[in-house]
Amino acid sequence: MAYLNEHFLKLKAGYLFPEIARRVNTFCDAHPDAAQRLIRCGIGDVTQPLPQAVIAAMHKAVDEMAVRETFKGYGPEQGYEWLRAAIAKNDFRDRGCDVADDEIFVSDGTKCDTGNILDILGPKNRIAISDPVYPVYVDTNVMAGHTGEANAAGAYSKLVYLPCRPANGFVPQPPKRPVDVVYLCSPNNPTGAVATREQLEPWVKYALEHKTLILFDAAYEAYITAPALPHSIYEIPGARDRAIEFRSFSKNGGFTGTRCAYTVVPKSLNAQTRSGEFLPLHPLWHRRTTTKFNGVSYIVQRGAEALYSPEGKAQVRALIEHYLGNADVLREGAKRAGLKVFGGVNAPYLWVKTPKGVTSWQAFDKILGEANVVITPGSGFGSKGEGYFRISAFNTRPNAEEVARRLQTLKW
Amino acid sequence: MAYLNEHFLKLKAGYLFPEIARRVNTFCDAHPDAAQRLIRCGIGDVTQPLPQAVIAAMHKAVDEMAVRETFKGYGPEQGYEWLRAAIAKNDFRDRGCDVADDEIFVSDGTKCDTGNILDILGPKNRIAISDPVYPVYVDTNVMAGHTGEANAAGAYSKLVYLPCRPANGFVPQPPKRPVDVVYLCSPNNPTGAVATREQLEPWVKYALEHKTLILFDAAYEAYITAPALPHSIYEIPGARDRAIEFRSFSKNGGFTGTRCAYTVVPKSLNAQTRSGEFLPLHPLWHRRTTTKFNGVSYIVQRGAEALYSPEGKAQVRALIEHYLGNADVLREGAKRAGLKVFGGVNAPYLWVKTPKGVTSWQAFDKILGEANVVITPGSGFGSKGEGYFRISAFNTRPNAEEVARRLQTLKW
Repeated sequence: MAYLNEHFLKLKAGYLFPEIARRVNTFCDAHPDAAQRLIRCGIGDVTQPLPQAVIAAMHKAVDEMAVRETFKGYGPEQGYEWLRAAIAKNDFRDRGCDVADDEIFVSDGTKCDTGNILDILGPKNRIAISDPVYPVYVDTNVMAGHTGEANAAGAYSKLVYLPCRPANGFVPQPPKRPVDVVYLCSPNNPTGAVATREQLEPWVKYALEHKTLILFDAAYEAYITAPALPHSIYEIPGARDRAIEFRSFSKNGGFTGTRCAYTVVPKSLNAQTRSGEFLPLHPLWHRRTTTKFNGVSYIVQRGAEALYSPEGKAQVRALIEHYLGNADVLREGAKRAGLKVFGGVNAPYLWVKTPKGVTSWQAFDKILGEANVVITPGSGFGSKGEGYFRISAFNTRPNAEEVARRLQTLKW
Repeated sequence: MAYLNEHFLKLKAGYLFPEIARRVNTFCDAHPDAAQRLIRCGIGDVTQPLPQAVIAAMHKAVDEMAVRETFKGYGPEQGYEWLRAAIAKNDFRDRGCDVADDEIFVSDGTKCDTGNILDILGPKNRIAISDPVYPVYVDTNVMAGHTGEANAAGAYSKLVYLPCRPANGFVPQPPKRPVDVVYLCSPNNPTGAVATREQLEPWVKYALEHKTLILFDAAYEAYITAPALPHSIYEIPGARDRAIEFRSFSKNGGFTGTRCAYTVVPKSLNAQTRSGEFLPLHPLWHRRTTTKFNGVSYIVQRGAEALYSPEGKAQVRALIEHYLGNADVLREGAKRAGLKVFGGVNAPYLWVKTPKGVTSWQAFDKILGEANVVITPGSGFGSKGEGYFRISAFNTRPNAEEVARRLQTLKW
């Protein structure tokens, strides 16, 4: 008699975005006129087309697939060498980070990678996450059996929640009691907070001291424009021994529907067995990748490679400037509307305090109903997200400007 | 202190194909002349270019990604409705199988799916596999902690091995002692055996009686040309209640480097909790997919959809005829060389008995060294594969003919 994984039964309701989609659909069905003027600033999905350098590279790759002499079958599961080399050089070595080509593992998404990484970790780890947090970190740990049940507020036992509030600039400090694994995300989804070098250094020191594994999600790295802010955890000395970094082409190259990302697993990074032996994690992730994955589409990898060409780089910069310009417009609009705003600088997300006495979902329903704008309720990201909402800057400029205007019309 | 997943330490050496690649590279480095005439019939990778219908559809999709109005960001994690609908209609309902569109989950590969499916199953299942078997089924169960250690022959404790031999036509019978989960693969990788309706019916009956979950891998379904042979487990009454089916575009459309596949999870299929409650698996796989995956590239899904157009279907038929023609040539060649051959009919793999006293790896080294042909040693697929080797028919016709000739030259 087949047994199912009962940890799934601990999961709360739907994943956040399906629940938002359900409410939006219900609203639109009931108010077809308002549905016409709906603007979506909810899910963090890009709106601008792919850079021309990517389009050209993918057309060329499609043509290669049409001819036997240039046709590509199975590629290396970890990604083609030319893409791994372009990544390691441009994103790391050119910025002074010591990362080798074969420490790069090309994948089809950071969402997948942050979930799949748990495959190589044992069941006994004490796991820390920020609160609020990207829900995938939590849900994948629930599925893997790393948590107990959720309480009424939606917090799972055994997980260590690190509160992120205005007082700490929404960047958590290392907890007093040691944890074995910690997820850090900078620039942050959902708060838009960006960790400074001074905020990351204590984490690396802590990780070296306690042999903690840092899972560093830098999917929004491209939005950092301030020169002093670190783009990679590997800019902090010692991080190579304690951190895995996740990167994505979704939010720089606009690959949300094209699908390509990568994970960095340094060869000097280790973890222990129950008997206390320390072994490198690189061979485990290599084995996991070669056994449970078959590589990213050749066509897509050629598209990703083009992001590192001179034209590709310039086109990505233009995309980032566009979305950061939206963030400026939205931040000013929300401020003028009397709202308290965080984030939206070096990051594509604004984290907005709801007016006193208004919950996140109440704000969601009001902004949807009265301004016909979809935002994301902060409480969907954790109990410390209650009383906030997230506005995504991924939009066209006219839409960003219109949202900024509509925010003025709301009477709270 | 971070803990690693110690089950990985039970895994034997490399995955089979990296080990083959290592031996081939060593040989080629030592014999550069022989390397010039090397023919690869090892890994089951297609050699013919993508069908023109796919090429045209992907060019169109790339162009859509270049314009804001037609640009696609995140798609549904489970796949676009138009692709799921095309699959359910063409591959199932048109063949009399009751499969709904929303029972189709589009993915980036059957290798991934057959590994990832373990996420929704509990740790207590007694798992049965064929011997010989596609190594991914075994290795992913080892990683998930469903096995004990391997013995000297490479067999893992706790796994139930179902021997496949000439006596049972290389199709296993249900074991006497009930198992909870069983992997069946037809047309089979590596043996090329195809299960008849009469061989599958007892499995479905057994599964209904014991509430066993059948994981049915039909990645090579397109190679079935004999009218009486079932293409899907769902052609057997009752299977909807007990089976998940895996399908791939790799070996019909030539998508090994393009990456698209799908999994069928019927809504009537259930599994039990430890307390004996039966719950449907469909919501668990849906949740797993939406949480740990972000869908297949839009461009690739449009390519897969084109395989169902009239032109696409005709072009796929031509590809299949080509590879099956190779299989004929290779089978006749191996027979003329005095070898005992199985498979290679309704399947792209030949399963060849080594001459008396010759092990699989000895045959591999001899065929590589003397005929400069790469095959796959049968023992790499399990202890009952010892004394066999696999020849893949994925090649050009001239190469298949040349391999057939070179097999005659070997003195065993």
